[in-house]
Amino acid sequence: MNTQKDLIVRSVVDAWNARMESADKLLDSLSDHQLEQEIAPGKNRGIYLVGHLTAVHDKMLPLLGFEEQVYPHLDEPFLKNPDKAVEKIPSAAELRASWKNVHSKLAKHFSKLSADEWFDRHTSVSQEDFVKEPHRNRINVLVGRTNHMQYHVGQLALLKK
Amino acid sequence: MNTQKDLIVRSVVDAWNARMESADKLLDSLSDHQLEQEIAPGKNRGIYLVGHLTAVHDKMLPLLGFEEQVYPHLDEPFLKNPDKAVEKIPSAAELRASWKNVHSKLAKHFSKLSADEWFDRHTSVSQEDFVKEPHRNRINVLVGRTNHMQYHVGQLALLKK
Repeated sequence: MNTQKDLIVRSVVDAWNARMESADKLLDSLSDHQLEQEIAPGKNRGIYLVGHLTAVHDKMLPLLGFEEQVYPHLDEPFLKNPDKAVEKIPSAAELRASWKNVHSKLAKHFSKLSADEWFDRHTSVSQEDFVKEPHRNRINVLVGRTNHMQYHVGQLALLKK
Repeated sequence: MNTQKDLIVRSVVDAWNARMESADKLLDSLSDHQLEQEIAPGKNRGIYLVGHLTAVHDKMLPLLGFEEQVYPHLDEPFLKNPDKAVEKIPSAAELRASWKNVHSKLAKHFSKLSADEWFDRHTSVSQEDFVKEPHRNRINVLVGRTNHMQYHVGQLALLKK
């Protein structure tokens, strides 16, 4: 059972799960008021980063071939535009609920994948290209998304008192 | 050649290399004066984060079984103590040089490892424990260190104008 392939898939998935658990704890420790502050003077607000991460992770659902994106209305304020460019954005409470839902869906899907299935292509690469670029698989997406999450979680942590 | 194991090792090593390249560019774009600023009011200074990452990565040299740590004097100011607790710390110029040297050594060692060798145990786990905990290997260390680096690089990026 413990082939090297299984081991490294577990390492990558465990890293996502552990980082996600820390991010959940961080968000729980921050008030809505804290989330509405800038992480540093003139920089993104906490709420923008939460919306941004939620939108990026929501898009993992179709990218990894699981199901459709749940909250496409987050693209405009949190992916296509910088912070403060869109006047009306979802509230912190709403974003917290979306964050939870997206991550619970991802966790459910992850738990069903076999090690082999993590090596299937992701949906933004064609079957043809995948033959030439076999690293464009699900597990590679997860490596990248975990790193991306950490980049912004390090910033969100600055909102702690 | 393209076994799944080779592919995912490449994904993880490529992710480290790509993130490291971005971090290098970020550091090159920041002046010594900028590095001496706090990333947010009352938080760590940029120079502390550079020292911290350099020290953590320097320790990867023995941890991954490559060679001895090069700069043990960085432990005291950047690992054992929080920022501003140690009065005299290395200059930004000195830290930039250590940063470059540590990462060039790591890159050299990484380039020589076969996929299989990434699954060897790291040196802080005994041969006995490794039998029971085979995920405590080199590649797992690299997954964790890349995530850790991103956490702080996201903070360092706040020093950009």
